[in-house]
Amino acid sequence: MEQVYINLNERSYHIYIASGLLARLGEYLAALDVGRRVLLVTNPTVRRLHGGPTEASLTAAGFSVVPAEIPDGEEYKSLASAEKLYDLAYRRGLDRRCPVIALGGGVTGDLAGFVAATYLRGVPFIQVPTTLLAQVDSSVGGKVAVNHPRGKNIIGAFYQPRLVLIDPEVLKTLEVREIRAGLAEVIKYGVIADAAFFHWLEENLEHLLALEPDRLACAVAVSCRIKARVVQEDETEQGRRAVLNFGHTLGHALEALTGYTTYRHGEAVAVGMVFACRLAVRLGLLDEAAADRVEKLLVRAGLPVSVPAGLSAEDLLVSMHHDKKVLAGRLTFVLPTALGTMEILRDVPEEAVRAALKEI
Amino acid sequence: MEQVYINLNERSYHIYIASGLLARLGEYLAALDVGRRVLLVTNPTVRRLHGGPTEASLTAAGFSVVPAEIPDGEEYKSLASAEKLYDLAYRRGLDRRCPVIALGGGVTGDLAGFVAATYLRGVPFIQVPTTLLAQVDSSVGGKVAVNHPRGKNIIGAFYQPRLVLIDPEVLKTLEVREIRAGLAEVIKYGVIADAAFFHWLEENLEHLLALEPDRLACAVAVSCRIKARVVQEDETEQGRRAVLNFGHTLGHALEALTGYTTYRHGEAVAVGMVFACRLAVRLGLLDEAAADRVEKLLVRAGLPVSVPAGLSAEDLLVSMHHDKKVLAGRLTFVLPTALGTMEILRDVPEEAVRAALKEI
Repeated sequence: MEQVYINLNERSYHIYIASGLLARLGEYLAALDVGRRVLLVTNPTVRRLHGGPTEASLTAAGFSVVPAEIPDGEEYKSLASAEKLYDLAYRRGLDRRCPVIALGGGVTGDLAGFVAATYLRGVPFIQVPTTLLAQVDSSVGGKVAVNHPRGKNIIGAFYQPRLVLIDPEVLKTLEVREIRAGLAEVIKYGVIADAAFFHWLEENLEHLLALEPDRLACAVAVSCRIKARVVQEDETEQGRRAVLNFGHTLGHALEALTGYTTYRHGEAVAVGMVFACRLAVRLGLLDEAAADRVEKLLVRAGLPVSVPAGLSAEDLLVSMHHDKKVLAGRLTFVLPTALGTMEILRDVPEEAVRAALKEI
Repeated sequence: MEQVYINLNERSYHIYIASGLLARLGEYLAALDVGRRVLLVTNPTVRRLHGGPTEASLTAAGFSVVPAEIPDGEEYKSLASAEKLYDLAYRRGLDRRCPVIALGGGVTGDLAGFVAATYLRGVPFIQVPTTLLAQVDSSVGGKVAVNHPRGKNIIGAFYQPRLVLIDPEVLKTLEVREIRAGLAEVIKYGVIADAAFFHWLEENLEHLLALEPDRLACAVAVSCRIKARVVQEDETEQGRRAVLNFGHTLGHALEALTGYTTYRHGEAVAVGMVFACRLAVRLGLLDEAAADRVEKLLVRAGLPVSVPAGLSAEDLLVSMHHDKKVLAGRLTFVLPTALGTMEILRDVPEEAVRAALKEI
């Protein structure tokens, strides 16, 4: 079994990665000092696919399960959904020791995590991510949130889980498009922090697309470790952690302007990474050859690498100015200076941004 | 000037207490490293009374003020009000360095604090409490929350302010009923942690009711220091901090059963403290003479000390079982064993609770 220890003092926790872990959730949860009633937040599809063994394992370990289904989709990652969960938790008598478990992808994890962070001022939070993206992204960092009608993740908190269980077997039930979107974030970790891992991904991409469980577990563990290293240095995103937003400034703008329906998050980030690489080349920070390698790997993974014709550079710029990472109106970008090393650039001239947008 | 330093590592901050501080808010805020745009959350009455000098001081110090009025009353301490504030903050372009300032009483502070804790995953929070209760209670502890239709403070977080400014002059604009309600919490600090302070309150109560600024500043500073000592030992309420809930289990039940309209919070807590003292006497923990002193001081302060005839013991018991502090269905009470020392008692028999309810 792969294990990653996230060291955040009194908020430290373990990530366990192995085939078959889903059916052992109850056993792992029982090892923590938590209440016996659990709110199991999931979506209808995930519950149909994986709810049975998960709930059975919780019940067998002595837990009383309060299931909560929230439909999938960014539009359900809302304060309205959070209210439904608060109400259910309160009506069913969950006290402050009772865990909230997220069984699902990023929407489920972010929403359930926000409720765990704010119900009774914080209850234990357990993550069981069932998409590749959630496994490599949401498992580490403690970012939980719901969307505001005008922007993604506007309402949220930093709140660490008590435990993360990752079962690569569940990925077999995903559409290939979800796997590709998850690989975008995996590739991101190579670019931002580990040239050797990027090279390993170039060698092993087809094995990952074929869902070989050992290689998947390895890719997930390395990704979580890289993210953990960054987060441990900067838990509440004051500085260094911004490197994780590589590709996200344009990515978020693409998602927002297309109503969160056209792109999977990872797909939008793939476009954003290619854009950031081209911008870095234009600003003299990065070799063109390195930018080409990033784009090529993303293309091999079946990911989009250009902005659709219907979106104007002006709309994208306006939307990027609304990004949470924009301070006092200055456009800030996280740009690679080589594979594995990044720089945070403030006050990037709009002209360079416009020119780089034209290149992709 | 009285100063209290709240030592919570990287979340440490100062409380400043002095006449005339309100008009110096901008100056104090400018000394922090925060954004230039501020969300000033207040209610119509407080804004009319104190908005002028406050906003002028912010503007003079170079801040751009986005004013937000939320009507007073527990019913406005809601997710719906929070949504209005998120929306305003987002529309007016507040980024993650921009402070949210609470100018008002407990409702304003709790709501604005919850928004500060969750907008963009947390922005700087500044407290300018204008009621005695808020000055001695909300200034320390980092508890922020909104209400759920079924219960108070069900949705919240622990989030520390960056700065607290307390101006005793503002208390002169309060109704005497608000002063009395605030004194309930001041008396609470004497009972739970400081027999000498309790004695000082017995000697000085009339001066405090007459709003003598120096004695008020002293009472506020001592109260904040006592609360700080407790909170520093237990920031997220795992154990010792529960002593602050002395009088609150019954107090919350009284507030809930009367729709949050009959009692001021401090009034309900006054009844709850007398009840807890009588329960402590019944359980053999406390001298009857000490219980009498507590009741007598609360009566002198003009506070209620008995449950109204219309409320049944059964309704109160059911409501107390819903308290956040109830773990796994066991009634837990914070009870004095002498003036200045407390004990947390779990599994208190319902019979003793019923009997003590009859005594008050």
